[in-house]
Amino acid sequence: MKILLRFAIILLALIFTQKNSFAQNKVSTNDEDAFFIKKMIDTTLTDGSAYLWLFDLCTQVGPRLAGSPQAAAAVEFTKQILDTLGLDSVWLQPVTVQHWIRGKKETVRVAHSVMGSFDLNALALGNSLGTGDVGVNAEVIEVKSLDELEKLGKGKIEGKIVFFNRAFDASTVNTFHAYSKAVDQRVYGAAKAAKFGAKGVLVRSMASGNNDTPHTGSLKYEDEFPKIPAVAISTNDANKLSSLLAQGKTSVYLETHCRYLKPKVTYNVIGEIRGSVHPEKIITVGGHLDSWDVGQGAHDDGAGCVHSMQVLETLKRVGYKPKHTIRCVLFANEENGLEGGKIYASEAKRKNESHLFAFESDSGGFTPRGFSFDLGNDVLKEKYKKITSWSGLFEPFGVSMTIGGSGADIGELKNGETLLAGLRPDSQRYFDFHHTPDDTINAVNERELKLGAAMMTALIYLVDFYGL
Amino acid sequence: MKILLRFAIILLALIFTQKNSFAQNKVSTNDEDAFFIKKMIDTTLTDGSAYLWLFDLCTQVGPRLAGSPQAAAAVEFTKQILDTLGLDSVWLQPVTVQHWIRGKKETVRVAHSVMGSFDLNALALGNSLGTGDVGVNAEVIEVKSLDELEKLGKGKIEGKIVFFNRAFDASTVNTFHAYSKAVDQRVYGAAKAAKFGAKGVLVRSMASGNNDTPHTGSLKYEDEFPKIPAVAISTNDANKLSSLLAQGKTSVYLETHCRYLKPKVTYNVIGEIRGSVHPEKIITVGGHLDSWDVGQGAHDDGAGCVHSMQVLETLKRVGYKPKHTIRCVLFANEENGLEGGKIYASEAKRKNESHLFAFESDSGGFTPRGFSFDLGNDVLKEKYKKITSWSGLFEPFGVSMTIGGSGADIGELKNGETLLAGLRPDSQRYFDFHHTPDDTINAVNERELKLGAAMMTALIYLVDFYGL
Repeated sequence: MKILLRFAIILLALIFTQKNSFAQNKVSTNDEDAFFIKKMIDTTLTDGSAYLWLFDLCTQVGPRLAGSPQAAAAVEFTKQILDTLGLDSVWLQPVTVQHWIRGKKETVRVAHSVMGSFDLNALALGNSLGTGDVGVNAEVIEVKSLDELEKLGKGKIEGKIVFFNRAFDASTVNTFHAYSKAVDQRVYGAAKAAKFGAKGVLVRSMASGNNDTPHTGSLKYEDEFPKIPAVAISTNDANKLSSLLAQGKTSVYLETHCRYLKPKVTYNVIGEIRGSVHPEKIITVGGHLDSWDVGQGAHDDGAGCVHSMQVLETLKRVGYKPKHTIRCVLFANEENGLEGGKIYASEAKRKNESHLFAFESDSGGFTPRGFSFDLGNDVLKEKYKKITSWSGLFEPFGVSMTIGGSGADIGELKNGETLLAGLRPDSQRYFDFHHTPDDTINAVNERELKLGAAMMTALIYLVDFYGL
Repeated sequence: MKILLRFAIILLALIFTQKNSFAQNKVSTNDEDAFFIKKMIDTTLTDGSAYLWLFDLCTQVGPRLAGSPQAAAAVEFTKQILDTLGLDSVWLQPVTVQHWIRGKKETVRVAHSVMGSFDLNALALGNSLGTGDVGVNAEVIEVKSLDELEKLGKGKIEGKIVFFNRAFDASTVNTFHAYSKAVDQRVYGAAKAAKFGAKGVLVRSMASGNNDTPHTGSLKYEDEFPKIPAVAISTNDANKLSSLLAQGKTSVYLETHCRYLKPKVTYNVIGEIRGSVHPEKIITVGGHLDSWDVGQGAHDDGAGCVHSMQVLETLKRVGYKPKHTIRCVLFANEENGLEGGKIYASEAKRKNESHLFAFESDSGGFTPRGFSFDLGNDVLKEKYKKITSWSGLFEPFGVSMTIGGSGADIGELKNGETLLAGLRPDSQRYFDFHHTPDDTINAVNERELKLGAAMMTALIYLVDFYGL
């Protein structure tokens, strides 16, 4: 019995390690691929380390905004893991990042004639500048859009605090689309309001539902206008404030302590398995290692980091020898600068590296529902045709191929030749956690997380084995 | 501007209320269906009451095992809601149920030579009988299957406590399939062990992952064998106990206080919209109102109840007048008797009611991934052909048609003519909560829940409008 078992194990090992050679001439997928993909899924679900890595990253390192001490710890932590995976090389790529800090806790205090004085649940927006110890106090004016602000103009806006209060469209099934339709308020609201002389900005949190948790996120100032303070308030508080405003004039006191420290050097963390046939051609799979300074950056984007690391662990465990170089990249500074993605792309260019495929996971660790491919021209459309010929292999798992965006970090690799793609997990819960204190390991389900990594591994394998 | 708006609203109202008449002759789906389905989705996601109903059912009524006072409260609670929906009739259908109670908390105490005495996280199995104040104390023997038990036989089993410890297969992607492959231990373990003279049974909880939460669920005794006590222990504790057993003999003290009270009369709660063309033909949509006596029965099956109620609310809100009678049924006693389903089917037969379609939601309130159809013969296969012609309408939402089971409560309607179906939500998290104290409203996401109801409404509409 034991001898038979040992024989079976040796046979399986032979099959997997020989995968390259005995099927070199195949051009389309078949039962053997389905079998091999199932093996990768089994390995990931049964023995994959993704969840344990994420647990440790969340609980031992915690939030890790670019430039923070925890960001340095995250670099060290993930590099140590990559060092254990038996890769061909692991290295750190230096990235200089701005170093924004929240400072002392922000205050948003409503002064109301009947209800008296009370504080709202608030988080200053990333990259915003603080008021210092003497905050701003002003009447609040509510708008639903940048257009409405523009129409009101200087006459109505000057000297006031502008409250952007357009909610997510609940009827939009994909919450990322709802986010896209609302996020201009957070990104550009402060700059546009400053243009008309506003003293500060409140923004309704970018959230799917109503609760007390504020969601931070970055804004963009414009150099020609004052850099006024900007704060996200929870959706419940946005509703409350809106009710008060409907009843009469309401003033708010706003105090924030955000500022920049000196730029810091941090790192993209990179590990790779060298290609056996085309080592010079690279497949990159990645997520971003930095997170906001609240919560634990579990879904955004700890999940994407451990997904990408899991791809390499699984490929090693099943004994697959890739033809192309497969590289896991944990990008620095996606949240408030994108410097990691920029450096990675410019270094690739400098070294004349050729990217066959780049694949990002930055939409959470939920059940995988699809892959999205960024197609700009006919060359890429041709490659996508090949991709869709594999659709049948993913159908049993409810994972479909779609055309759309890919990921912010790999976006810098866009050159009309390299196919870019993103993992698309189920989106319903993402904006309950995104950029909040609630984005913790408790919000992550182990099986959902691992299933995402398994699907990514399967796609990476197909791209590597059949080429693009 | 206001006049235009009013005109648009009237026009929309006309379109929706006239849906039956102006499109009577259509046989296949088209853009108009897609538009109308989007309207149902919008209405459900934006204004649907499903989540609020479930919140109240969970927090105000709580767990509601058949026969319990809370089961009576749940009947009253849901009937009151149905009474507000403007249905054509709402009624209670009496169902006599057995009344099992857990009684005083169960004890599973390990006596170990080195580690001393300690308790495991345990829940007595539903329908099991208690030991009373003097429990049973015996050496534990671990088995992985009923087959293994059979092989060990009376010689090894007599006088012992049998510990069934076969875990879910983590590599099985659909967790309901993993459950199916493990649940025989819980259902038949006690009867089979009693046959060989065992004094009691411990069962590893039917769970996807490892944690400290025990999962209850029903067992089936056999009349010819003693009704020995049976308890589920948490997966962490199962692993711990298994380690101890690998090191040497281990004894356990088992004490449970479960018993039956007198049978009770409870009710199926039913509401319907009468068909405008074929009132005599019925479409039933339902879930079960009872739950286990721990947690809040949120996913199992409060979600299915509010899904079904939401279908009627949404159809009313969009002004759809069904051709067939559409009936929402909240079944009694699914968990430990299935009496609600049996009574509903026998009453339907007695009244000569003809069921066109029956649709159950009893797999949780997670993101909908598909509908499963129970096909036993060529008549049903023909109907399924028509169903699959609508697949394109559900594809944008990642909801697919599959062949398989439907639901336990509607199973009694099976007659070779009536098409039976079940909602299939994403399964990854279900067995973290199933039959545990953790199955509470906190485990339910509002958008995922509502999306399930929206998809069910769309399918019910298509079946009603195009027939089967």
